[in-house]
Amino acid sequence: MTDHSLVFPAAEYAGRVARLQAEMARRGLDALLLTTPADIFYVSGFLTRFWESPARPWFVIVPAAGDPVAVIPSIGAELMGRTWIKTIRTWDAPNPEDDGVSLLVDTLCGLLPDRARIGVPMGMETHLRMPVADYTRVAAGIAPRSFVDGTAAVQRVREVKSEAEIEAIRTACAIAGRAFARMPEVAGAGRPLDQVFRGFQALLLQEGADWVSYVAGAAGPGGYADVISPASPDPLQPGDVLMLDTGAVRNGYFCDFDRNFSVGPVSDAIRHTHAALWHATEDTLAALRPGMLARDAHRLLSEALVKRDTRPGGGRLGHGLGITLTEWPSFTPLDTTPLREGMVLTLEPGALVDTGRMLVHEENIVLRAGGPELLSPRAPLDMPELA
Amino acid sequence: MTDHSLVFPAAEYAGRVARLQAEMARRGLDALLLTTPADIFYVSGFLTRFWESPARPWFVIVPAAGDPVAVIPSIGAELMGRTWIKTIRTWDAPNPEDDGVSLLVDTLCGLLPDRARIGVPMGMETHLRMPVADYTRVAAGIAPRSFVDGTAAVQRVREVKSEAEIEAIRTACAIAGRAFARMPEVAGAGRPLDQVFRGFQALLLQEGADWVSYVAGAAGPGGYADVISPASPDPLQPGDVLMLDTGAVRNGYFCDFDRNFSVGPVSDAIRHTHAALWHATEDTLAALRPGMLARDAHRLLSEALVKRDTRPGGGRLGHGLGITLTEWPSFTPLDTTPLREGMVLTLEPGALVDTGRMLVHEENIVLRAGGPELLSPRAPLDMPELA
Repeated sequence: MTDHSLVFPAAEYAGRVARLQAEMARRGLDALLLTTPADIFYVSGFLTRFWESPARPWFVIVPAAGDPVAVIPSIGAELMGRTWIKTIRTWDAPNPEDDGVSLLVDTLCGLLPDRARIGVPMGMETHLRMPVADYTRVAAGIAPRSFVDGTAAVQRVREVKSEAEIEAIRTACAIAGRAFARMPEVAGAGRPLDQVFRGFQALLLQEGADWVSYVAGAAGPGGYADVISPASPDPLQPGDVLMLDTGAVRNGYFCDFDRNFSVGPVSDAIRHTHAALWHATEDTLAALRPGMLARDAHRLLSEALVKRDTRPGGGRLGHGLGITLTEWPSFTPLDTTPLREGMVLTLEPGALVDTGRMLVHEENIVLRAGGPELLSPRAPLDMPELA
Repeated sequence: MTDHSLVFPAAEYAGRVARLQAEMARRGLDALLLTTPADIFYVSGFLTRFWESPARPWFVIVPAAGDPVAVIPSIGAELMGRTWIKTIRTWDAPNPEDDGVSLLVDTLCGLLPDRARIGVPMGMETHLRMPVADYTRVAAGIAPRSFVDGTAAVQRVREVKSEAEIEAIRTACAIAGRAFARMPEVAGAGRPLDQVFRGFQALLLQEGADWVSYVAGAAGPGGYADVISPASPDPLQPGDVLMLDTGAVRNGYFCDFDRNFSVGPVSDAIRHTHAALWHATEDTLAALRPGMLARDAHRLLSEALVKRDTRPGGGRLGHGLGITLTEWPSFTPLDTTPLREGMVLTLEPGALVDTGRMLVHEENIVLRAGGPELLSPRAPLDMPELA
């Protein structure tokens, strides 16, 4: 019995649960029902790539007081048993007649009073990782207990990272930084883009990623048209700008930042736009403070780009980061989430180059009382050239 | 504008939609609402790792007649525009005031009559990839149209693979087969297990995987205790059995099979159990036929193990495979899903060695009229030894 899979000492998880319980008390919740890999890892330390199989639902209940209770498929009992969670109830899944429904109902009813309000994450950035028909059955089975929206209770706690979490994200960022520094080993004129993607993923693994959940990118003359497409087999050409963006994972925590490279010499238009993105990031690193709102980060980045004669790209210009590639809030004009000390965030300004193509630029930070502290190794002002 | 991201010719997707529409007609469904990466890729060819970000919901509607309609965040318009989908409606997500809800309601109401029954996958192996509070809002907004269970309509179509899909899965299997053949390059006595996992993922990429969504495994003396844990940093020891299981992805399609290796000479107990697993697979390859039920595959594998003085492990002994690492049905005593020609399946017998440890063994097949055809390169009867 080792606890390699626990990632952090049990006290880290106990602290998280205490903070969740404080939020639950404030919001009148008698329990939380969690179903996603991120929420369950957050409270338990249960970390496995087995989530990739959609076959089975998994549940963790956080009561108003006391330790969490896991209600999970028996295939996970061994691994969950190595976390700090002591109460683990299992069923043999998948079971087409009753896939954990009655066990979950029984557990909730045994733990919670008749009028209990059970928080389930239902809002933005959430989904329910169980069949919705079974959710409806559980909701009927627990009456008069009821499911209510638990999004805020979870998000207000998870969004403020502990120092242990910040170090985990810093480690993931450093891995990606070392892999980006080795890009000339895998990228250059004539190299097919899909092979560049494969080579970059191999570099991330060599540099210490446990796995690589996300690599996106693009390449094109004078910028790129979109940033979410899979790689084509087309070879890189002189004059292309290559962008790679990665969410590499170490100990369950992500980095999420990108870097741009010029295949051959950098054009004036690209130099101008890249410098504007870089300086807009500098301005925002200098100005961002706890107490601002998410939309203020959008405003700071947008204004800094406009001041430098650059048209901001559409979409959000940054977001939260941690156990998933992206977390709330979103740096858009509409997001009024307060920015708080300890939030880990991305600054992700994008800009249109002429011809409708774009450039993006991304760094990862933790927001401290005095302002941002970089977690990603800062991109150079001058875009690196590849042969 | 290239169509690298389409994966297959448009006719492949049109055929899928025609088959879905035939099932929908049989089941009295006026449309399907799809929200998951797998279902959306299946009908559209929209393939991106951007799903890793939980920030935004995505929707594709399959009407009773005519082409699918996409209702998606604007960041995906460029990529979706390169698929065969012609009608693409977008909003700027994430929007905390209305994250696609009114656009989806408007689209469904414009497409469908007042009394329309809209199928949503709600059953086993499904989840709804959108906030459940927004789902409730959409359900209210489309009344008197209603959401009903669309699981069977989707699963009865997706479970029978086209020849193009079978070739895609065969390609993924061949990639993993080549990587497994190179295991001595990355594994042996003294190598830390987590480094073996990293090295194996790099081999999969070198051999042509676009990305590696799943690697699990374990190592221990005379077998292993569970098969879903992350890798520990403990070095491999002489006498360990090392098992690695991978879902490597090429063009959006998975393989899912494992291989065992002995660090040093194989013990008699391990040789006996491994041979039983291997022969149980042979027996089932010889006996499995369309028209049997999923539970018959469980029975065939279990009986073959018992006949060889081996105790079958708990849990399911195989499952579907394709766009996700695992698909329905499940080879358990309770699953009565009919096995049909064209299904791609895993045969995954597991057995207990003495001392409570286990061995697992997995192959991937396509079920033909005359029986299974292997897609994974057949494992050797004798477990390979590592130095």
